Amino acid sequence: MANAPGEIEALIALMARLPGLGPRSARRAVLHLLRKRSVVMEPLAQALVSVAATARDCRICGNISDHEVCPICAADKRATGVLCVVEDVSDLWAMERAGGFSGRYHVLGGTLSALDSIGPEALRIPHLVQRIGDEAITEVILALNSTVDGQTTAHYIAEALAPTGVQVSALAQGVPMGGELDYLDDGTISAALAARRRL
Amino acid sequence: MANAPGEIEALIALMARLPGLGPRSARRAVLHLLRKRSVVMEPLAQALVSVAATARDCRICGNISDHEVCPICAADKRATGVLCVVEDVSDLWAMERAGGFSGRYHVLGGTLSALDSIGPEALRIPHLVQRIGDEAITEVILALNSTVDGQTTAHYIAEALAPTGVQVSALAQGVPMGGELDYLDDGTISAALAARRRL
Repeated sequence: MANAPGEIEALIALMARLPGLGPRSARRAVLHLLRKRSVVMEPLAQALVSVAATARDCRICGNISDHEVCPICAADKRATGVLCVVEDVSDLWAMERAGGFSGRYHVLGGTLSALDSIGPEALRIPHLVQRIGDEAITEVILALNSTVDGQTTAHYIAEALAPTGVQVSALAQGVPMGGELDYLDDGTISAALAARRRL
Repeated sequence: MANAPGEIEALIALMARLPGLGPRSARRAVLHLLRKRSVVMEPLAQALVSVAATARDCRICGNISDHEVCPICAADKRATGVLCVVEDVSDLWAMERAGGFSGRYHVLGGTLSALDSIGPEALRIPHLVQRIGDEAITEVILALNSTVDGQTTAHYIAEALAPTGVQVSALAQGVPMGGELDYLDDGTISAALAARRRL
């Protein structure tokens, strides 16, 4: 396919590896970049270089930021004593977007999976147990995805933390905001029914 | 939304401006990049920097390459005397992918549009007329999109080239490969009927 110079083809191939972009849409995106070289392409290139050079995993919680300790772990205002455990940095961002949590985080980096041989060590669970003692944590909120792997991991962590005496809670399950019963799966409706609250 | 460091948010905002990506998918793409910093992010950043620095419009045909004159215009093997006029660089690439054309190109950079006040000068049409004489062109193939704007532009160019005496042709219109009549629009079927060929 000698239709674009080699360097541009290489760029298209790299873009096509991003989630949400395939070969065709990557080509379209690169063409857009080529048409707007000074307005879009150069700022994007600079932003990528800069983020690639500075981004790192927070050594305390596993969040990604441009410091060794992320702004959340470094913030004096955030409550100490409460940890929110999430699977991934994207979940941490989602929690922060939602607001309402003022404690600190612990990013597992995935879920337990026998199939992919991902064990507790790969998920920074020992590190979590260590933080309970080191940081005098009193409550751990498990904000894991409501998937089989997520819930398996939640149960494993709850058991692993039992000896520490820390209070462990999990996000409530139920009908999402704006959710219509007719379109919800049976599992969600059953969970919402079981966890019904008095008005 | 203080959910990611400012630099990363800026990167997400830039990615969200690419066609095919919205704010959510841009966030997902950036997270993917952040997770694969050395394998995907750094090569992509380098490729972007490099292409942004070298890409330029071919001064003859308007194709994008890393030279002042693109490889197609510079190739001795390509037939001189036949020009294929396309709207955009993406169309040039599509023609090259399809193969079968061994001449050279002229990229208009869009179509005539009274609404957006895009006139012949903005489309390099005077440049096209000049090339007819300079390069001793004998045939011009109009490979414009089969849209109202594309066909309007084709007619305008055909009239503009009439005084030069050059032969002007256009891509055939008809049933696309694998096309099923039941799913084709009436215009295509009418065009294919009018242009029917003897077997």
